[in-house]
Amino acid sequence: MMNYKTFFTPGPSQMYFTVEDHLKTAFKENIPSISHRSNAFSDIFKNTRESLKNLLSVPDGYEIYFTSSANEIWERIIQNLVQNKSHHFVNGAFSEKFYNFAISYQKASSITRAGEGLEFENLSVPDNTELISITLNETSTGYAFDQNNIKQLRADHPDKIIALDGVSAFPAVPINLELVDTAYFSVQKCFGLPAGLGVWVVNKKCLNHYEKVKGSGLVTGSYHDLAQLKSAGDKNQTPETPNILSIYLLGKVAEDMINRPVKMIQSETAYKAAILYQAIENSKSLTPFVKQKVNRSKTVVVAETKNGNTEILDTLKTKGWIMGKGYGAYKEDHIRIANFPAVSKEQMEQVADFISTL
Amino acid sequence: MMNYKTFFTPGPSQMYFTVEDHLKTAFKENIPSISHRSNAFSDIFKNTRESLKNLLSVPDGYEIYFTSSANEIWERIIQNLVQNKSHHFVNGAFSEKFYNFAISYQKASSITRAGEGLEFENLSVPDNTELISITLNETSTGYAFDQNNIKQLRADHPDKIIALDGVSAFPAVPINLELVDTAYFSVQKCFGLPAGLGVWVVNKKCLNHYEKVKGSGLVTGSYHDLAQLKSAGDKNQTPETPNILSIYLLGKVAEDMINRPVKMIQSETAYKAAILYQAIENSKSLTPFVKQKVNRSKTVVVAETKNGNTEILDTLKTKGWIMGKGYGAYKEDHIRIANFPAVSKEQMEQVADFISTL
Repeated sequence: MMNYKTFFTPGPSQMYFTVEDHLKTAFKENIPSISHRSNAFSDIFKNTRESLKNLLSVPDGYEIYFTSSANEIWERIIQNLVQNKSHHFVNGAFSEKFYNFAISYQKASSITRAGEGLEFENLSVPDNTELISITLNETSTGYAFDQNNIKQLRADHPDKIIALDGVSAFPAVPINLELVDTAYFSVQKCFGLPAGLGVWVVNKKCLNHYEKVKGSGLVTGSYHDLAQLKSAGDKNQTPETPNILSIYLLGKVAEDMINRPVKMIQSETAYKAAILYQAIENSKSLTPFVKQKVNRSKTVVVAETKNGNTEILDTLKTKGWIMGKGYGAYKEDHIRIANFPAVSKEQMEQVADFISTL
Repeated sequence: MMNYKTFFTPGPSQMYFTVEDHLKTAFKENIPSISHRSNAFSDIFKNTRESLKNLLSVPDGYEIYFTSSANEIWERIIQNLVQNKSHHFVNGAFSEKFYNFAISYQKASSITRAGEGLEFENLSVPDNTELISITLNETSTGYAFDQNNIKQLRADHPDKIIALDGVSAFPAVPINLELVDTAYFSVQKCFGLPAGLGVWVVNKKCLNHYEKVKGSGLVTGSYHDLAQLKSAGDKNQTPETPNILSIYLLGKVAEDMINRPVKMIQSETAYKAAILYQAIENSKSLTPFVKQKVNRSKTVVVAETKNGNTEILDTLKTKGWIMGKGYGAYKEDHIRIANFPAVSKEQMEQVADFISTL
C-alpha cells in the first residue's frame, strides 16, 4: 500500500475503492484510444447512461448528457433554459456562483439569500421567473436544502423549471428526481472519481423551454447547446471528443454502487454522518456550523472551531486524514469533512472517536 | 503485453509510451484526490505550463490556459475575441465547424473555402475582420496549411488576431508561434493522452482585444471567460475544478518529449510521413488524397481508395493496426493514418512495407 493518506476533502476527494482497478482494465481494453464515433464508445456511453438512470432512479422522460464540469452545466442552463430570469436560493458560495453566472449572461435574475443560521425565511419566487435554482447540498457551508421545501416549491410552481444542484449529494442522499426538471453533479465528490466530467439530467419540459429560448433569437451556445447534446446523445454519442475515460469509469462505479446496493450506501452515509455530528458535539473545540438538524448535510459535515483550524487540521493530518479548510470567509475557522461513499463505516468510526476527544 | 493493437486512428489515438506509468505514479501520489486550491495542484499547473512553453517554444508575453476540449476553445475564442466578425480559411470539416460556431454566436463572419485540390487560391481577408482562423493541420482531410502562407497573412495583417488550430500538429510539426496571436490543441492527438483537455495559448494582443469585446457590452462567458482564466491562472489555478489528472499527465508527457528531444520527434515525424506517402504511391489500390506535396499533412496521412476502404481496413486490422475511416462524405473512400509520436519509426516502417503491397 503506497497510499498512507485518506482524503476527507469535499472534492476532489478519496477515490472510490474500485477506481484504480477499472482504470487498469480500461487501459488493457484500449478505452482511451477508441474513437468517440465507434460502436465501442456508443456502448460505453449507453452503459453509463443506463447505470446512472438505474442508480439515481431517473424517471422516464428524463435524459442524461455529459459536460466537462458542474460549472459548465451552470453556464449551459443559463444559455439554454433562461430567456430573461432565473431565481436562486443561495446558501453558500457555490449557489451564489451560479447566480453570478446568470448575471454574467445579463439575465434579470433574482436571489433569496439564506438568513441567520442559514435557513430560508420564505420560499416565495417572483412570478416571471422561468427557472428556480436549488442547491441540495451546499459544499461550502454544509447546508442541506430541506426536501420538504423542494416539495413545496414544486407544488407552488408546477410550470416553472426547477433546477437541482446535486453536486456533493448524488447518489449518497436519496432524492425523488420527479420533483425537479433538471439536476446535475460532477464526479469528483460522492462518485469518488477524478475531476473532469459533469452529468446533466434534463426532462422534456426543459427541451420545450429550450426551444422557446432559441426561438426568441438568443444565442444558446454551440457544441453543447441542448439541441446538439440531444442530437448526438440520441446516437449514444457526444458532439465533441469527450472525456471518454471518465465516462467509462463513471459507468463502472455506478454499476458497483448499484450492486452494493445504493440503499446501503445511503443508509451508511446517514449513519456515518450521525456519528460524526455526535463526535463534533462531544468535542470541546468544535461545534456543528449548521444549527438546525434538518439542514445539516449528510455528505459535507462542517464544524466551527473555537480557535482557528490550523492546529486541528495538522493533528488530523498526523493520523493520515486530510480534511478540508473552511470556504471563503470561513477559511481559517471551519473544518469541512467529506462523508462520501469512498470512506468506510470503520474509517469514519475511527475518525469520530478521535474527533470527540479534541 | 495485453495490448495487441496499435491505434493509428487520428484521435483519440495510441497512448504515448509513458502514459500508463505516469498514471500509476499519479495514483500513488494521490494526484486525483488533491484539492485544486492546494499548493500541490498549483505546482502541477505551473510545471505543465512551463513544460509546454519549453516544448512549443512559446514566446514571452504568451500565456497558457486549460479548457476541456478544442471545441470549447473555438467557443471561447468567439465569445472573447470576436465582437463582430472573424474570417475562416476552411479546408475540411473541423475548420468549417469553427466557422459554424461563429455563426451560432451570430457573428457576421466570412469564409474562404479551399478550392479543387484543397488549395487556397487567394488569401485575401475582409478589412473589418478582427480575427483570422487558420487550421495548421485539418484532421478530416489531411491538408496542411502552408507555413509560408501563415507568414504572408501575418505580414499583411499585423493588427488582426491570427488564431491557429494546432490540434493534430503540435508538437510534432515545428511552428513559430510568434506568427500568430492565439493557438490551441487538444491532448488526444500528438500528445497521446486520453481525451478531455484543451490547451489555449493567448498573447497580450488577445487580452487587449478581449477588453474591447467585453467593453462593448457583449457577453464573454462566465467561468472560462479570459479574465477569469487569467485571474485564476495568475495564481497557477483554474476557475473551476479542472481535469487535474490530465493536466498532470500532459506536463509529464511534455517533459518526456522535451527530453527525447522534441527536434528528434519532429524529424522522425517527417521521416515516418515520407515513407508512408511513398508506400501509398507505390500501392496499387491507394493514392494520396492531397495532391500538392507542400500541403500534405505529416501527422494525418490520408489515402484515397479505388474501391472503398472496407476490405483494406479489415486487412490492416488483422495485423493489429487500427486505422481511421474517411471523414464525412469520404467515410467509405478514405483511409486516415495518424502518424503521431506514439508510433515508432520501426512500427511505421512495418506499416509502410505492408501498405506498398496493397
